[in-house]
Amino acid sequence: MHISKEKRPLAIVIIVALLLLVGLASVFLILNFSYAHTDALHAVEIAVTNKSRGRGYNAEEYMMARQRLLSKEQRRALGAWLQLSEKESVLNEILLHEKKEIMEKSRLDRLTYTPALSFFKSKEWMENTTTFKIIRKMPKGAALHLHTTAMTSLDWLVKNITYREHVYTCVDKDGFALLSAFLHPPNDTECQWKPVSEERAEAPSSDKFDEELRKNLSFLIPDPLTAYSGTNQAWDRFNKYFKQVGSLLINAPIMQDYFRQALQEFWEDNVQYIEWRGGVRGYKEINGTVHDAVYGAEMFKKVVEEFVAQHPDFMGAKMIISGVRYRSEQTIEDHVKLATLMHRQYPNFILGYDLVGQEDPLNPLLFYLDALLYPTRQSLDDALPYFFHAGETKWEGTDVDENLLDALLLNTTRIGHGYALAKHPELADLVRSRGIAVEVNPISNQLLGLVSDLRNHAIVPLLADDFPLVISSDDPAAWEALPLTHDFFVAFMDLSGQDMGLGFLKQLAINSLKYSALDNYDKEAALGLWESKWNKFVKEAVAEFS
Amino acid sequence: MHISKEKRPLAIVIIVALLLLVGLASVFLILNFSYAHTDALHAVEIAVTNKSRGRGYNAEEYMMARQRLLSKEQRRALGAWLQLSEKESVLNEILLHEKKEIMEKSRLDRLTYTPALSFFKSKEWMENTTTFKIIRKMPKGAALHLHTTAMTSLDWLVKNITYREHVYTCVDKDGFALLSAFLHPPNDTECQWKPVSEERAEAPSSDKFDEELRKNLSFLIPDPLTAYSGTNQAWDRFNKYFKQVGSLLINAPIMQDYFRQALQEFWEDNVQYIEWRGGVRGYKEINGTVHDAVYGAEMFKKVVEEFVAQHPDFMGAKMIISGVRYRSEQTIEDHVKLATLMHRQYPNFILGYDLVGQEDPLNPLLFYLDALLYPTRQSLDDALPYFFHAGETKWEGTDVDENLLDALLLNTTRIGHGYALAKHPELADLVRSRGIAVEVNPISNQLLGLVSDLRNHAIVPLLADDFPLVISSDDPAAWEALPLTHDFFVAFMDLSGQDMGLGFLKQLAINSLKYSALDNYDKEAALGLWESKWNKFVKEAVAEFS
Repeated sequence: MHISKEKRPLAIVIIVALLLLVGLASVFLILNFSYAHTDALHAVEIAVTNKSRGRGYNAEEYMMARQRLLSKEQRRALGAWLQLSEKESVLNEILLHEKKEIMEKSRLDRLTYTPALSFFKSKEWMENTTTFKIIRKMPKGAALHLHTTAMTSLDWLVKNITYREHVYTCVDKDGFALLSAFLHPPNDTECQWKPVSEERAEAPSSDKFDEELRKNLSFLIPDPLTAYSGTNQAWDRFNKYFKQVGSLLINAPIMQDYFRQALQEFWEDNVQYIEWRGGVRGYKEINGTVHDAVYGAEMFKKVVEEFVAQHPDFMGAKMIISGVRYRSEQTIEDHVKLATLMHRQYPNFILGYDLVGQEDPLNPLLFYLDALLYPTRQSLDDALPYFFHAGETKWEGTDVDENLLDALLLNTTRIGHGYALAKHPELADLVRSRGIAVEVNPISNQLLGLVSDLRNHAIVPLLADDFPLVISSDDPAAWEALPLTHDFFVAFMDLSGQDMGLGFLKQLAINSLKYSALDNYDKEAALGLWESKWNKFVKEAVAEFS
Repeated sequence: MHISKEKRPLAIVIIVALLLLVGLASVFLILNFSYAHTDALHAVEIAVTNKSRGRGYNAEEYMMARQRLLSKEQRRALGAWLQLSEKESVLNEILLHEKKEIMEKSRLDRLTYTPALSFFKSKEWMENTTTFKIIRKMPKGAALHLHTTAMTSLDWLVKNITYREHVYTCVDKDGFALLSAFLHPPNDTECQWKPVSEERAEAPSSDKFDEELRKNLSFLIPDPLTAYSGTNQAWDRFNKYFKQVGSLLINAPIMQDYFRQALQEFWEDNVQYIEWRGGVRGYKEINGTVHDAVYGAEMFKKVVEEFVAQHPDFMGAKMIISGVRYRSEQTIEDHVKLATLMHRQYPNFILGYDLVGQEDPLNPLLFYLDALLYPTRQSLDDALPYFFHAGETKWEGTDVDENLLDALLLNTTRIGHGYALAKHPELADLVRSRGIAVEVNPISNQLLGLVSDLRNHAIVPLLADDFPLVISSDDPAAWEALPLTHDFFVAFMDLSGQDMGLGFLKQLAINSLKYSALDNYDKEAALGLWESKWNKFVKEAVAEFS
């Protein structure tokens, strides 16, 4: 920069003035900071035992200081900053009233607290609460953590898909029914395939048969905490579910209808938008034709477009391609290449890539480092966003625990589960500062053995400190949960305090859109749509439940 | 301030110069801060997907950035900053080797992880590990959270106390043996008292009788997680234990011996110092004489002094007077008055006051506010320090949860349990900044129903972020744990990561003395004594376990 000679004195004056200004500002800031700091500590200076004070506070002064500190604490929670409208405040009171009643009855009368029990013991119970009915009707925004083959209710699968031609079943050596679609069943000596229609005809009644089949498929049993004695036993049963329905749902026409029904059920559960994990390759026809990835992407895309056309108040569904953590590095590299191409071809529908499966014993992200760094080595213009599952574990300081580290280093857009995140203060700070949302699936975490009493869910400290966080449902169909309502219910009753009401739920809904992968334009539109639905909901809920 | 006219220009120059300096310093600090901030974020800028970069990192650069972030994360944990000596490093490797082996075997082979199971399933197992043997020999510093009547092993109680004259027993309607000492037993129709000696004589053998009696007293049963189905059921059994032994241990001569034996057992478990909760009033003689508080204080004090005289490597024991949370406000006010007097009379032995009992259903601290503010209203010169139990709960946002708030406002010296603290970010910040230590009792928390899998213990996030924290054992005798070793073992295997070794254990020992209520002079002495024991231990352990 050149400054002419005449202007130099002026320049010096300006610099000196600026420095003076900065100096003054700093002094002001420092004083202000000290003051604020003093104020923060002031509340706990009520020193009954503080010799230097010479005198104590009376009860009235105490209660004022107490209220100050309590408010400060409460304001840090997720949703605590939202200003509620008059109508919202009425609804808030209804929710808080029931929440307090249920909690206090259990706490003071020393009774079992049903909302924190195993979902299988709490499911029916919760459905009869006013809170559940309100949450069911509440526009919940988006569900951002789901998997293709556990999105549609088992009821519908049994009552619709298994009534179709070419659908076969067999019972494996452990007594589990497998399903598939064949023109001609294979000659399988370990599992004898028969048309479902024949089996159903031999049963005492169709309803009885359907009921038995549904029960056989469901992860839901009377007491899973005893039956699935640990994480691994639960995962074995969970994997079996995917084996039971997987072969059937790889059939392209069946998957189209199954997925269409998923959208229907999420829409009916007042969910406005979906991002889900799944594969695009390998869908096939009954005649044996196997489709490629483009076909798969087009298939899902078409279902979504048709559904949105018929339901203009639904904002759509987008897909994250996923591989499984036990594949070879070569396979994952193939996936990453494919996902990169697919994301380029469908930037507005194929969002990115993820790795799934039981994290604990399977390969950590680091195992696939070369494959996962592939896109950067190609100097591609378009990126491959990652949406990694990470930290779905209790194994602190192990390789699997470090998935959180690698997810961050690989610039993950969101984190699936992140159960272990609170044990990593440095990583948690980064996740917060970068606005990377954690996708929490409370019922899934409970059923797959991470935590039994949901009040101990490891994400609670982060919820209490307004963390970027969304609630989703992972695989609701596998355990016969509604698309999102049951998970929101337990989040409300177990993951948040007795004082956290409608603002907490509203912020979760807002977060679900805020942290979606929608582009800014669509995000605004989605938030606008959601808000108008929200206002309608508040009005109707107040009318119905007051 | 007056400045003479001549000096005014000089003063102005000085002020301007100072402001300029502050300005320059601020600019420097701001730039520096931005730089530090950039550096902190740098590690996660490895943007595989970051379009703006244009190119990615190779695996080598990735691994360097990864190591940087990993170290940053690990350095935040409790004990991570300690520099280990050469010998300590050898011992550290021994500990880390077994820790990793046990964890990885379970994680990768999908086997049950015994150290996190119910203590009743893990107790015997853990005693056979090298880690346990090392921790047993390790000088562990202080145990700061204990209760009088559950400090001495049941074995000793049965084999010693119940062999004495005048000791009676009866079996209540639920099959629990109660113990007491009488000259003449009362005529109790609900529970028929008989001399233990008679009952023993009628048994197949003394050993058999003693074994049955111990089992009957013990909280330890084959599967408490099933038998004690929830927090309340566990507390009922726990309270029963105190009923079983309470009447016996209120006998003054018996308590003297019992307490003397407690010191012996803690000393043998390599604990150097104790602070425990209990009452001083009501100890009585076999003839019915009831002693006052001064007698009680003198009784315990004398036992401690004699024990220290015989064991110069033991630093003593001090007492916190405690009341129970179901008493009337008047009773608690009487306690507070008494404790204030006792603390004045024995400032170096009676440390302060606490309230105990199952927090959930009982009165919160706020209920006793007037009583607890009593000392301040008296303008007493000497203070009454509080050591409140607070946050031993899963009930977020309830009255009981707010005990943490009131403990802080009432200037508590330490917090007993603080299980709920991580759910309160504002309070946790204050606890940290004020150096108020949390007394964590992991086995107690598990057995009393707060958490089943100890890896989910709510304090783990705070341990991972170097919080003021000590490990204690609460009521080890009730569940037949060693004075401190079992709790240190589960802290090591469940509350800390696979990468946290000897530094973690050493810091816990240091913390236990640092956060004790010893005055600075005694604290220095205790740390010195502990350090010489520590160095001896390291040398011997390396020799024995290498």
